[in-house]
Amino acid sequence: MKADIGLVGLAVMGENLVLNMESHGFTVAVYNRTVEKVDAFVQGRGKGKKFIAAHTPEELIAQLKKPRIVMMMVRAGTAVDDTIAKLVPFLEKGDILIDGGNSNYQDTMRRMSELESKGLRYVGTGVSGGEEGALNGPSIMPGGSDSAWPYIKPIFQAIAAKVEDGSPCCDWVGPNGAGHFVKMVHNGIEYGDMQLISEVYHLMRNQLKMSADEMADVFENWNNGELDSYLISITRDILRFKDEDGSPLVDKILDAAGQKGTGKWTGITALDFGVPLTLIVEAVFARCLSSIKDERVRAKKILGAPKGAAFSGNKGSFIEDLGKALYAAKIISYAQGFMLLREAASEYTWHLNYGSIALMWRGGCIIRSRFLGKIKEAFDADKSLSNLVFAPFFSSQVLENEAALRNVVAEAVKAGIPVPALSSALEWFDALRTDNLPANLLQAQRDYFGAHTYERVDRPRGQFFHTNWTGHGGSTSASAYVV
Amino acid sequence: MKADIGLVGLAVMGENLVLNMESHGFTVAVYNRTVEKVDAFVQGRGKGKKFIAAHTPEELIAQLKKPRIVMMMVRAGTAVDDTIAKLVPFLEKGDILIDGGNSNYQDTMRRMSELESKGLRYVGTGVSGGEEGALNGPSIMPGGSDSAWPYIKPIFQAIAAKVEDGSPCCDWVGPNGAGHFVKMVHNGIEYGDMQLISEVYHLMRNQLKMSADEMADVFENWNNGELDSYLISITRDILRFKDEDGSPLVDKILDAAGQKGTGKWTGITALDFGVPLTLIVEAVFARCLSSIKDERVRAKKILGAPKGAAFSGNKGSFIEDLGKALYAAKIISYAQGFMLLREAASEYTWHLNYGSIALMWRGGCIIRSRFLGKIKEAFDADKSLSNLVFAPFFSSQVLENEAALRNVVAEAVKAGIPVPALSSALEWFDALRTDNLPANLLQAQRDYFGAHTYERVDRPRGQFFHTNWTGHGGSTSASAYVV
Repeated sequence: MKADIGLVGLAVMGENLVLNMESHGFTVAVYNRTVEKVDAFVQGRGKGKKFIAAHTPEELIAQLKKPRIVMMMVRAGTAVDDTIAKLVPFLEKGDILIDGGNSNYQDTMRRMSELESKGLRYVGTGVSGGEEGALNGPSIMPGGSDSAWPYIKPIFQAIAAKVEDGSPCCDWVGPNGAGHFVKMVHNGIEYGDMQLISEVYHLMRNQLKMSADEMADVFENWNNGELDSYLISITRDILRFKDEDGSPLVDKILDAAGQKGTGKWTGITALDFGVPLTLIVEAVFARCLSSIKDERVRAKKILGAPKGAAFSGNKGSFIEDLGKALYAAKIISYAQGFMLLREAASEYTWHLNYGSIALMWRGGCIIRSRFLGKIKEAFDADKSLSNLVFAPFFSSQVLENEAALRNVVAEAVKAGIPVPALSSALEWFDALRTDNLPANLLQAQRDYFGAHTYERVDRPRGQFFHTNWTGHGGSTSASAYVV
Repeated sequence: MKADIGLVGLAVMGENLVLNMESHGFTVAVYNRTVEKVDAFVQGRGKGKKFIAAHTPEELIAQLKKPRIVMMMVRAGTAVDDTIAKLVPFLEKGDILIDGGNSNYQDTMRRMSELESKGLRYVGTGVSGGEEGALNGPSIMPGGSDSAWPYIKPIFQAIAAKVEDGSPCCDWVGPNGAGHFVKMVHNGIEYGDMQLISEVYHLMRNQLKMSADEMADVFENWNNGELDSYLISITRDILRFKDEDGSPLVDKILDAAGQKGTGKWTGITALDFGVPLTLIVEAVFARCLSSIKDERVRAKKILGAPKGAAFSGNKGSFIEDLGKALYAAKIISYAQGFMLLREAASEYTWHLNYGSIALMWRGGCIIRSRFLGKIKEAFDADKSLSNLVFAPFFSSQVLENEAALRNVVAEAVKAGIPVPALSSALEWFDALRTDNLPANLLQAQRDYFGAHTYERVDRPRGQFFHTNWTGHGGSTSASAYVV
């Protein structure tokens, strides 16, 4: 009997994914570059299950039903290109190659066009949820050769996480790099969510002097409301977790955060497209600042700690404000993330279904939350919604919580506790609603020193003027229509 | 007689540069792709001067002393590659090709290695100061083939701007892309400076309800103190400038700022290197937000303007605070910019002379200011200075003005007036001096869902631990040393 799908790459994610597939009735052929892993798996975790061991790429492909579907779970980068090169000689027209790693979407675009020129079909898919998600139901975000979708849909939707009504957290995202792009934005949003939670934690710990258990209670409470999410729930668990000596383990952990690059890619893409993704970029930069621990310790010695004011308000109502601020900032962060998706859709002519993307993130992945169900509803109700904060539900939610966000940021500013993500959310939300920003001065400066020209509020858009700002003698024709 | 240097590209910048060279005694051969421009220039602005007209690349190069020096002033991008391709067949070993446009430093690195492999020398140089600077003394930031410097030094240092003691605002920056990298960071800093001025203007205009003339007086006053700079002086001029109807022209200008890409490149590079260049990135994003004017007008209709508090303090002392906040934020922005230079130097093994870079920016260019003289002094006094805010002069200056910055940001937050650059400066400065950031929680989260491991405050750095956070039963060995 031939296999339904083949897998290359038996690291933990790959193993868990194929165990998930097998448990849903699929037969899977497995191959790994270090071939000992293949037999170890088939005789170990895969024992007695519908797996077929393959010891060469050729053997793997010979075991597959046609059109063959081969999924790669290998390290992003050159390993993907190497694996493709080894598989291609044995594939024939119409076969489907899937990259399930965290590849850069531009690499996926390049690979798809190379493989389609050979008559093959290529899919780049985001897979989120970590090892446990891979085994029990990840969020899956596939994009690439559209004609591949009907073949992989039954497998992917079977193994994906399901929401309450049974809908799978997996749907076709769009052509070429769309799947990996959506996964990248997912990861950027994850950076933002984590930084927001950390800032709120910092205020509770340092300004309100709360214990880890007290904070755990707050997160537990929040997890029963509109903030209900995986990240809030694990924060509660982390804060409750005791080290061997009985003290909170979180206090023993070094405050130097690493990053694996996808948050950075999201920020770079936003800068490249000119989309003001302020919160995620601040979250990435906050990790960078955290990682230079020695420099910070030195800075404190030379410059002293921030000269902040002690807390003098009502603790209970400030905690309530923290929850509201977190919620408002989260709405703003997702609004920014969907702006970036919209810009990419326009740039690459992808017809993205934003409600469907929200559903894919609703379960299985790190940013899964009740909140994403509301985002799905908002985009389902208005397919042309240009900005998430314009949706009736979210505009009312963000406005209800605006004062709390403003209060928390002001308190943090006075206290000298850095809240770059919360603060950037408020700054963005204020700027978005300001019809007259000070960019008129900025345009005047650019025209002054570089003759960059400007538009006028009293003339139609698209007419550009240049002024000879240093001209003397009070000329009445200082402004000139230049294009 | 042969020419000292040849120039390709007779747009205004190119014309002004060669007029500057000629006025310093150099003979210049000129060529332009549209050859009519060559004769028009030599018989027009260049009439009676030491210019030699060339009508083909071959003719241009035949007119030059050896080793030949050819400077390109053409549009960044493929035009540079095209021009190089046309010139190379006529050049011989040891000849020097200079790109004076706003090229991406990575292109310059690539081009230098290609041309050096052919035995040629290549220089990528930043030229700042606009058209007027090009004519009367620009800031020039050359980098590339080190052995080219002795040949171009007499010309570049002659035409460059000079500071009070006669030092030229031009020195050798370093190998391959170093010159264009420094120019890129210069432009990023320019974005930051302009955004900071705009935010302070916004607060004066909207919170203090000041007239353009009143604001001009404030900028005039600031320009006599430590904020003395080109951008402050032109802001004063702009605010005084009246439209034909006698009202301030600045009020008629549309608040939608454009960008030409170098600010964006600076931000992308910072993200790529992991350097928290928050202020410049916020300045770039502020331009992006300004440019979506229609979306902002719509946002105001749907969401209302920010619900801010009216100003209730003392106007005079708040204006004083605005000047201090601007100064503190500017110190922080430059500290961030020099962090990026330091990281690039380490990444590419450039031995950058930071004092010399500050001197290059001290005059001629858009960010020229008295302030840069102080930066030069700080780096001259301590060549290994790791962070500008650690220098005695700047640490005392930033601490003296910290309270004002904090007050201004808090007021803006309460007022609902966006100050993303001022705010990011304060957030960064507070985070830098915080020895215990909340990244311990973030590392716990990463270890919880992705087994990313963490370091401990009570163990040596470089030891990584993983905890089974969901393990039940109170295991006493929850933490395990994994690498």
